Amino acid sequence: MSAPDPAMEPSPTAPASRPIGVFDSGVGGLTVVAALRELLPGESIFYLGDTARVPYGGKSRATIERYTLEIAGLLLAEHAKALVVACNTATALALPRLQESVRTPSVGVIGPGAQAAVEATKCGRIGVIGTRATIASRAYERALQALAPTVEVHALACPLFVPLVEEGWLEDPVTDAVIERYLTPLRDAGIDTLVLGCTHYPFLHERIARFLGPEIAIVDSARNCAVALKDLLEREGLVAGGSAGRLEVALTDPPGAFLGVANARLGLGIGQVQERAVQGVQRMS
Amino acid sequence: MSAPDPAMEPSPTAPASRPIGVFDSGVGGLTVVAALRELLPGESIFYLGDTARVPYGGKSRATIERYTLEIAGLLLAEHAKALVVACNTATALALPRLQESVRTPSVGVIGPGAQAAVEATKCGRIGVIGTRATIASRAYERALQALAPTVEVHALACPLFVPLVEEGWLEDPVTDAVIERYLTPLRDAGIDTLVLGCTHYPFLHERIARFLGPEIAIVDSARNCAVALKDLLEREGLVAGGSAGRLEVALTDPPGAFLGVANARLGLGIGQVQERAVQGVQRMS
Repeated sequence: MSAPDPAMEPSPTAPASRPIGVFDSGVGGLTVVAALRELLPGESIFYLGDTARVPYGGKSRATIERYTLEIAGLLLAEHAKALVVACNTATALALPRLQESVRTPSVGVIGPGAQAAVEATKCGRIGVIGTRATIASRAYERALQALAPTVEVHALACPLFVPLVEEGWLEDPVTDAVIERYLTPLRDAGIDTLVLGCTHYPFLHERIARFLGPEIAIVDSARNCAVALKDLLEREGLVAGGSAGRLEVALTDPPGAFLGVANARLGLGIGQVQERAVQGVQRMS
Repeated sequence: MSAPDPAMEPSPTAPASRPIGVFDSGVGGLTVVAALRELLPGESIFYLGDTARVPYGGKSRATIERYTLEIAGLLLAEHAKALVVACNTATALALPRLQESVRTPSVGVIGPGAQAAVEATKCGRIGVIGTRATIASRAYERALQALAPTVEVHALACPLFVPLVEEGWLEDPVTDAVIERYLTPLRDAGIDTLVLGCTHYPFLHERIARFLGPEIAIVDSARNCAVALKDLLEREGLVAGGSAGRLEVALTDPPGAFLGVANARLGLGIGQVQERAVQGVQRMS
């Protein structure tokens, strides 16, 4: 499949009432959905988690670009009026290509997260944690230094955090030991702000805060991504009326146990989960 | 893509000199390659790791069947004379369908592992650990109880072991804590044999053995899979002459750091790594 065909984009009838298309490699992006529901309760959301190909965090740019464009095509088919890439890895590696290829406006999680970090830091030393692919892309460094050229960025891949979250070990001595192992060098580097550069990581927010102590601010990009989307909708005249937007959730593989954990912790009230096939992952009956 | 077309299977010219096609979702299956190299040094091996879609362990049967058939097609295109499914998840969920669809003979890792466990147990209580998908499939229970109807099987998913191995935390207090957490109930159940039902797990063999103590035998299916393949080659008249088989390694995504760890620990001498595209993962230039 090449880039999504512009012809797939629906004609702009009643555009404001169309849903926000939110996408993540799995269900971590539901943390962004929770922030969107809070800030923009009138917006309908169609969430698509590419669970058949999760995780994206160890994969190459070419593969992640391809997956992102495929998922964008599915969201455009759902008449999305705007796209939210609620996945740091996909934002880091594929947002530029998505924005080149698709006319429907989109926001990622990295710009908003970087903005919040620059506002939070006093000493100018910012830590960023994420998947291997996000960190290797240096997307946060670029975004941070574009906003504040003198900030010192300490970036670190924490590949065990996603599987620990998906195992549901959210308050757990093993998870605390992994947090200590990964984050001690960042704390010792004298950062005063840490960006949670993966949408799974907000589930570990409290335990990370406990380890880092009150002097280090923790920025998660979910809230700031919601603010960026609100700005975008206002700018484009796409804000929905009303206050009871729908939430639909679709996955590319049947849901696992973690969806229930996430649903309960985030209070999203997800009901029936739909399935969508992506190229190479069509159901075989 | 439907099942691999039989027309893709090469004509049987000089069949014995053709390679063994070995496949895994990632690079864990290299533990099976190491066992094959030791037992069958004259056989050439073409190894294909589906790293663009790793891990398989949390995915559905339909998705894993599809991936397995796609990878089999790539191995048949390399003129594989026999296929080794060096992945417990793919063996558990997709080996029957592979054997229905493809005439080239194949072996998986579960039958041989179950055989070794039944030979090792004295008390008849066998533990099996693996990915969520492998354990949910109950494939080991079926294989064990087909061989020895009275054995009592204690099966447990250990989803953090693969990411710990891929992080390279092989001798590590965090890994020891996870081993203790997962395996204490199995030890307390009075098993005398534990099957490592995932090809990543042999990298943790020593630490698991240290925790379980000398009374519990640990069975890894790699060695037994190699024996099963040797039997198959002899039965089919496909044994290669000579003693210097080639090893070629291809991945569906560029190699990460763990390939180097595995190569060093297994002493495989892997040189250049090839890339292969799978459906939906074609390179975008």
